[in-house]
Amino acid sequence: MLAVHLEGGAVSLRDVPIPKRPPGFALLKLLVAGICNTDLELLRGYYGFSGTPGHEFVAQVAEAGTPALIGKRVVGEINLACCHCDWCRKGLGRHCPNRTVLGIVNHPGAFAEYFTLPERNLNVLPDTTPNDRAVFTEPLAAACEILDQANIPCGETIAVLGDGKLGLLIALVLNAHGYKVHLFGRHEEKLRIAAESGVQTRLANAALPTAGYDWVVDATGNSEGLRAAAAMVRPRGTVIMKSTVHGTVGIDTAPIIVNEITLIGSRCGRFECALPLLDHALIPVESMISARYPLAEAPEAFDLAGRKGTLKVLLTA
Amino acid sequence: MLAVHLEGGAVSLRDVPIPKRPPGFALLKLLVAGICNTDLELLRGYYGFSGTPGHEFVAQVAEAGTPALIGKRVVGEINLACCHCDWCRKGLGRHCPNRTVLGIVNHPGAFAEYFTLPERNLNVLPDTTPNDRAVFTEPLAAACEILDQANIPCGETIAVLGDGKLGLLIALVLNAHGYKVHLFGRHEEKLRIAAESGVQTRLANAALPTAGYDWVVDATGNSEGLRAAAAMVRPRGTVIMKSTVHGTVGIDTAPIIVNEITLIGSRCGRFECALPLLDHALIPVESMISARYPLAEAPEAFDLAGRKGTLKVLLTA
Repeated sequence: MLAVHLEGGAVSLRDVPIPKRPPGFALLKLLVAGICNTDLELLRGYYGFSGTPGHEFVAQVAEAGTPALIGKRVVGEINLACCHCDWCRKGLGRHCPNRTVLGIVNHPGAFAEYFTLPERNLNVLPDTTPNDRAVFTEPLAAACEILDQANIPCGETIAVLGDGKLGLLIALVLNAHGYKVHLFGRHEEKLRIAAESGVQTRLANAALPTAGYDWVVDATGNSEGLRAAAAMVRPRGTVIMKSTVHGTVGIDTAPIIVNEITLIGSRCGRFECALPLLDHALIPVESMISARYPLAEAPEAFDLAGRKGTLKVLLTA
Repeated sequence: MLAVHLEGGAVSLRDVPIPKRPPGFALLKLLVAGICNTDLELLRGYYGFSGTPGHEFVAQVAEAGTPALIGKRVVGEINLACCHCDWCRKGLGRHCPNRTVLGIVNHPGAFAEYFTLPERNLNVLPDTTPNDRAVFTEPLAAACEILDQANIPCGETIAVLGDGKLGLLIALVLNAHGYKVHLFGRHEEKLRIAAESGVQTRLANAALPTAGYDWVVDATGNSEGLRAAAAMVRPRGTVIMKSTVHGTVGIDTAPIIVNEITLIGSRCGRFECALPLLDHALIPVESMISARYPLAEAPEAFDLAGRKGTLKVLLTA
């Protein structure tokens, strides 16, 4: 079968055997996958990754121990938890210290004709959710995670920094939940996607407001984002940290202490929160699709995905 | 009257007029004051301070608009709030953007024979709270602030980093509230003070535990503290930031996001939380007094307070 391979900063294609399905696992046939910023970081050598990436996908179950799953269209939780540790028992397998992660940590990813995941990781899609929407389940769950972690009162105004894929999804999710969202970004055409759903958008080229918000989400993806967010938040306010930046970030902790700011690191979320939003078409994710390529053109797809201004690039089987 | 003066890194004594009491203010006669780390930082030139420092005090009301206050023994909230802004209306005058701060920001401090504070800032002490205990009200309130900000479940185990004055008070306050406290410090004689109240103490010379606590308080006062605390906290755990460090601190934000850590900046607290703890002698603050000097020997007192191993140095009128 065809599988994308990352190694030494290059994207290549390999012909590899169809993976064996361990007990409890399903063999999945890729329908469509999405390239995430994390995939671009793996390409740049973060986490010392080499292998097949890919964790945003819609697939069809080709083989499974549970007959009812076979042939079903599914998405899947990307963390393969051990199911035995304290974290797993608390329902927080996403933090299981023994976990592997689809296409990221020690489990071959979804940018291949076939791949495997534990059956318990799968969510069967309703027929009413098309592939092009369902492929956004994983990043949308990451956006929804904010609402699982922080108890933001109804009707609050929330500033979101960054109009990349994650920033847009966060702004759209918070907007769909009734919050007043001010999205700050640098790309008029990206901001427009959020504005069409009622998000207030601002070009962030000028000075940002100081101490203007009780809630600020940093989804800039760069080390400036946290500093900007800390300056935008009011005393006793909260900054949600969504920008995974590599290496150390220099921050002035004194104002964080003096103003009693709370910083909350936020990563993956529960698919259960994202799936109804997609099924009911509450988030216009299709408008974020920049291009689609067949799996065999993955190098070109990665090249486009890495260019400034690109939103979601899809790979199709 | 005699007043301590800080300027250009030196402590001196000046003979200055007794301050005038503005309407709504009380004139206070110093009984005893405590030297805080913040005072040592003011001496080192932080905040561009010059003038009379001092914000930990017990005083007697010499003059006041409210006759019932005259002659009373008092402690006092150090933030002089405007009482008109949104923060003040929410009861958070400690975050009032228009505030001055006793002995820190634009209001002469308590290291003087007389000083002033608004009457509304004063708490009259019960006769059962001696001066040597009451002088710890302000730093103890800062320790109590943690419990006002974070909803820590009963019986949790909390790691506290740092056995300086604030670290000890935090460990003792959390211990008095029924939490299991593990205090990590570098001074056996300081750790002993906490151990005598039932706090579990550990010399922090060896490697600290990794991902071992759901709650970690950084009260080290140095930039290493936050990094150590972030490494000690479990996924989804909380770090309370109590170390005001000047300049930027380089932290690796990726594990904070991946492990969904919450960081909470924490500063001053409500005197109402601290006063009953002191009145009921629940915190052995007297054992933290290293020395006492008359106001006229303030330079010597500052010198001792700045030396490693010293705990609280008091100034008496």
